[in-house]
Amino acid sequence: MKKIINDPKNYIDEMIEGIIANEPTKLSRIKGFDVITRKKINKDKVALISGGGAGHEPAHGGFVGEGMLDAVVVGPVFTSPTPNQIEAAIKEVTGDKGALVIIKSYTGDRLNFEAGQMLVEVTDLKVEKVIVGDDVAIDDTSKTAGARGLAGTIFIHKIAGALAEQGASLKEVAKMAQDVADSVRTMGVGIEACVVPAAGKASFILSEDEVELGLGIHGEPGTEKSKMLPSKDLVDELLAKILKDDFYKGSEVAVMVNGLGGTPISELHIANNDLAKALKAKNMKVAKTLVGNYVTSLEMKGFSISILKLTPKMKTLLNAKADTLAWKEVA
Amino acid sequence: MKKIINDPKNYIDEMIEGIIANEPTKLSRIKGFDVITRKKINKDKVALISGGGAGHEPAHGGFVGEGMLDAVVVGPVFTSPTPNQIEAAIKEVTGDKGALVIIKSYTGDRLNFEAGQMLVEVTDLKVEKVIVGDDVAIDDTSKTAGARGLAGTIFIHKIAGALAEQGASLKEVAKMAQDVADSVRTMGVGIEACVVPAAGKASFILSEDEVELGLGIHGEPGTEKSKMLPSKDLVDELLAKILKDDFYKGSEVAVMVNGLGGTPISELHIANNDLAKALKAKNMKVAKTLVGNYVTSLEMKGFSISILKLTPKMKTLLNAKADTLAWKEVA
Repeated sequence: MKKIINDPKNYIDEMIEGIIANEPTKLSRIKGFDVITRKKINKDKVALISGGGAGHEPAHGGFVGEGMLDAVVVGPVFTSPTPNQIEAAIKEVTGDKGALVIIKSYTGDRLNFEAGQMLVEVTDLKVEKVIVGDDVAIDDTSKTAGARGLAGTIFIHKIAGALAEQGASLKEVAKMAQDVADSVRTMGVGIEACVVPAAGKASFILSEDEVELGLGIHGEPGTEKSKMLPSKDLVDELLAKILKDDFYKGSEVAVMVNGLGGTPISELHIANNDLAKALKAKNMKVAKTLVGNYVTSLEMKGFSISILKLTPKMKTLLNAKADTLAWKEVA
Repeated sequence: MKKIINDPKNYIDEMIEGIIANEPTKLSRIKGFDVITRKKINKDKVALISGGGAGHEPAHGGFVGEGMLDAVVVGPVFTSPTPNQIEAAIKEVTGDKGALVIIKSYTGDRLNFEAGQMLVEVTDLKVEKVIVGDDVAIDDTSKTAGARGLAGTIFIHKIAGALAEQGASLKEVAKMAQDVADSVRTMGVGIEACVVPAAGKASFILSEDEVELGLGIHGEPGTEKSKMLPSKDLVDELLAKILKDDFYKGSEVAVMVNGLGGTPISELHIANNDLAKALKAKNMKVAKTLVGNYVTSLEMKGFSISILKLTPKMKTLLNAKADTLAWKEVA
């Protein structure tokens, strides 16, 4: 597969430089580290830090900026960043109000982010964490590390970020982040796999009439192979897992139709039309809809649906001003 | 190729419904037409109307909203909309200050948009047009219909849109749109072709080490086949055409690295890094950079570079508030 790169060894470095060059007055890089921060660091607020392996762009560098994150740590493609990178990120942006680290639930990310957090805590900086596992593909978590962090994570960046920007305390921001993490579910379908640049071949193979339901975002196969279906039926399959119980009953929701990188925007909108109709038929009230590439897997084709159960406070924060590369909110 | 659709016959209709469902409080559809308008139509300003064949999403429905367009007309995939659709769009959003129609330079679009314009003019509404041909791939325009309209068109939507929002006259808005059209150049490279849903097969075939330089955005092949090259060399090939003379000498510029639909955002950022370095080496000052999917060709892989020669007035308008699905500017 052809890729617009120079050398796979420089993939992360050149991508980070390209992100900074996209918004050079607002973003900065910690010299010698794979860490993107706001250019103008505000230590009078709770700092929000996230990150993980690369390959999920615009996550997470695209969400650094006013109203969202303060710093992100970028690991190699689909690989957790190291604790010393995470330590550097936290130290760079954290003041007396402390920091919240937002971690997607994968074994590597949890181990390394927690190690990074410990390295910082010896310096007296207050750091809290929230672990996001919005994935509802895996019913039996006893056999796995549990639900994985998927595109629903971006709702946490946005809502907790807006609260931090308003000057809330670490306790309040951490509580809100945990509430959002507990209120969002995601389920995805892959229709074509991706190729990790350094590997050069697809991580799984699908035939012309197969899809992977419940896939992860690291090129791993899904929980179930299915026949390729029309958009409406794919949406129904994903919704069946997300709406399996009374979780959302009586609440307004925010939804995200997230492209996995190689899906045309037109197809995401067709899926969104099917989603909007399905939710309307269930009398669910959608307060906000996002459609686009938020958490991708390189050029994978497919999409995920995330649904967030909103409180009035979350809804206000979701619509508060944000100014990042990949989520701007004109308040 | 697998596509997230229901029936190719309903592609346009369902996509438009999905776009409206993405922002139902701000966007609307003219009943019975493939026309997307702002929900709250402001007839006290010059109206801006654009459109063309579908398959280029987020162009152009993603650019309807405050600070940009008032209405877009959506044709079948890669096919111009009909005059009666264009007439309906102009009539719906145009008041006494008149309308500007922004047309990408393709034979079908020119014929149909001009016919639509004539249908409206008999009603006494004032309508001006600007034809955009930012493509610099074709040196010898005597053999063709001339330079095609590509991603540089979006700069016109933004800058003329901001001026119209400020209350400028039709003459002023049309003049600014023409100035921007005369100041932007675009050149693209395709590394993998796309598949039109109703056709079901790729419009051209590239081998594992081939690319198409100077491609159009309708699945047509480019002006020249080349070997696949590293990102840096692809960027240099595109820049060689764009910077072939003294056109930009002494001016600040705005640049767009536009993904063609199936290109990972990370690769666009790698190309942007190469572009930023190349322009710096030439002492060109970049005032604003856009990286992402703006004018796509379904799931085509590849990218285009657009460079706009800025005046101070254009720069101000480029950064003015905008609130559309695909271009938000937090002023």
